[in-house]
Amino acid sequence: MVNNLQIDFTILLDLMGTFAFAISGIRLASGKHIDWFGAYIIGLVTAIGGGTLRDLLLDVTPFWILDGKYFLTTAVALLATLLFKEKLFKWGSTLFLFDTIGLGFVTVVGITKSIDAGLPFWVCIIMGTITGSVGGVVRDIILNEVPLLLQKDIYALACVAGGGVYFISKYLNFPSGVTEIIAVTTVIVFRLVAVKFHIHLPQLQPISDKLNDE
Amino acid sequence: MVNNLQIDFTILLDLMGTFAFAISGIRLASGKHIDWFGAYIIGLVTAIGGGTLRDLLLDVTPFWILDGKYFLTTAVALLATLLFKEKLFKWGSTLFLFDTIGLGFVTVVGITKSIDAGLPFWVCIIMGTITGSVGGVVRDIILNEVPLLLQKDIYALACVAGGGVYFISKYLNFPSGVTEIIAVTTVIVFRLVAVKFHIHLPQLQPISDKLNDE
Amino acid sequence: MVNNLQIDFTILLDLMGTFAFAISGIRLASGKHIDWFGAYIIGLVTAIGGGTLRDLLLDVTPFWILDGKYFLTTAVALLATLLFKEKLFKWGSTLFLFDTIGLGFVTVVGITKSIDAGLPFWVCIIMGTITGSVGGVVRDIILNEVPLLLQKDIYALACVAGGGVYFISKYLNFPSGVTEIIAVTTVIVFRLVAVKFHIHLPQLQPISDKLNDE
Repeated sequence: MVNNLQIDFTILLDLMGTFAFAISGIRLASGKHIDWFGAYIIGLVTAIGGGTLRDLLLDVTPFWILDGKYFLTTAVALLATLLFKEKLFKWGSTLFLFDTIGLGFVTVVGITKSIDAGLPFWVCIIMGTITGSVGGVVRDIILNEVPLLLQKDIYALACVAGGGVYFISKYLNFPSGVTEIIAVTTVIVFRLVAVKFHIHLPQLQPISDKLNDE
Repeated sequence: MVNNLQIDFTILLDLMGTFAFAISGIRLASGKHIDWFGAYIIGLVTAIGGGTLRDLLLDVTPFWILDGKYFLTTAVALLATLLFKEKLFKWGSTLFLFDTIGLGFVTVVGITKSIDAGLPFWVCIIMGTITGSVGGVVRDIILNEVPLLLQKDIYALACVAGGGVYFISKYLNFPSGVTEIIAVTTVIVFRLVAVKFHIHLPQLQPISDKLNDE
Repeated sequence: MVNNLQIDFTILLDLMGTFAFAISGIRLASGKHIDWFGAYIIGLVTAIGGGTLRDLLLDVTPFWILDGKYFLTTAVALLATLLFKEKLFKWGSTLFLFDTIGLGFVTVVGITKSIDAGLPFWVCIIMGTITGSVGGVVRDIILNEVPLLLQKDIYALACVAGGGVYFISKYLNFPSGVTEIIAVTTVIVFRLVAVKFHIHLPQLQPISDKLNDE
């Protein structure tokens, strides 16, 4: 009974994350002369891009081939955008929270999938970060913008922090459920705090491109 | 004898499609300070990009590794562009027809390859759409433009329509040859009609990006 | 003893190439409102992007999963950029030399890995070119620029030339060590000469895009 509840809760987190990722893609596509179907594709790529690259690198079957719910959730996200535009606007902070929870969740999914594949801890952290971040990068590339991720590091760095905490907790022999909850929470808190207090890394100053002139 | 003719016809369709896809890449590269070799690469990526991603997702050997004809056809397309520029210009509608026939053909190739891999029907339709569409998206990304596909959906949506018709026809137990011809024709007619009558989906209106400001 | 030295030398070449590739990514990222972590990611993608795509296409484990030194070398490259900016500037031609040596080296690594996978010679040349070139293309795509590679072909064409010489030398039954040295040298000399004497292919002139208007 408890176990069933746990599974349902995991699925709920997964769907919420997918929904928020898809919305972030669809929002960014709006106002760029992109039609509904194009917006759906952008939402989809944002939601499943990171996990797809992870699965290609791990040489396992892409997760969405086994389960149609990611395509359906993205369709619901598009529908919600078309129907409740104004309300979605008011829900800005709720969506941000979904997005952050989703980030924490998919990062840990990426880590556990990589552990199952027998990879060393640092590769698992990279795979978790790829799972959480790459969708948004591909979204920005397709929409012809310099990825937000590179300008505001909070996103990927939060995944790295969560990954680090995951393996510390694992090293301390915490039960795997606890380890996962701690790691998800780390990603969420790390990002919320960084965004709330405008914490960010310094930017890389211009360097002469003499190299390219050679 | 009939069988041999059928195989020859299939190869001819495949080459025509590859040629038209390559030309569309090379044309878009022209006038952008891109040299001949760069134009060849753009043509190649347009022609083989979609099928390559499909094969990576299906975890099978990329189709062009087994057969040099795609690289040769792209070279012929570049040569034709350099030699017959003016004439190619006059052949605009012929090339558009090639491109559309190629789209129908590669979509069905993508579907049948996915059926062979034992995938559910909706994944097969997605794989067919990826096969037909992704080359053009990567072409636009490399050339630093917002993909045409997202602005005029006819392309990808025609693949989806053809895929749907394929499985309806299959469900009705039509012979596989007939099913394939019906599906290819659907993609072609769908696109020709949509372009001819300027049918397109509505565009997604601007949405406040309060989410990004958080 | 000689053998150990040879292995050490190979590792040294590999690290030098990785370092130079990473620096080229980090330099291009500078002055674009990209933070330190973002610059690290750009450096990393430049350094390992080509080999990663090659390994995905060959369906083997991505090389960096087995060895952390590429991630460490990129971190050193970022540190060096932050600490020695002015000096790195003065070392412009040294870095260019590293980059060119790295290009020769990774091209031959790509070729030998593809031979081990049992691929025909022309696919091996393509894989060598992908290994050397794709990292820089992805770097340019992420940074929202039309890839330099397409505008100045010397890069990819040098890989193709080195690959051609590799197989001629192999056909002539030269020892494999000699073949590799000749091929690496070809890439290096080809690029140095082309850059030194401003040799480049003609650019593709504008072609009417009537096709797109249909």
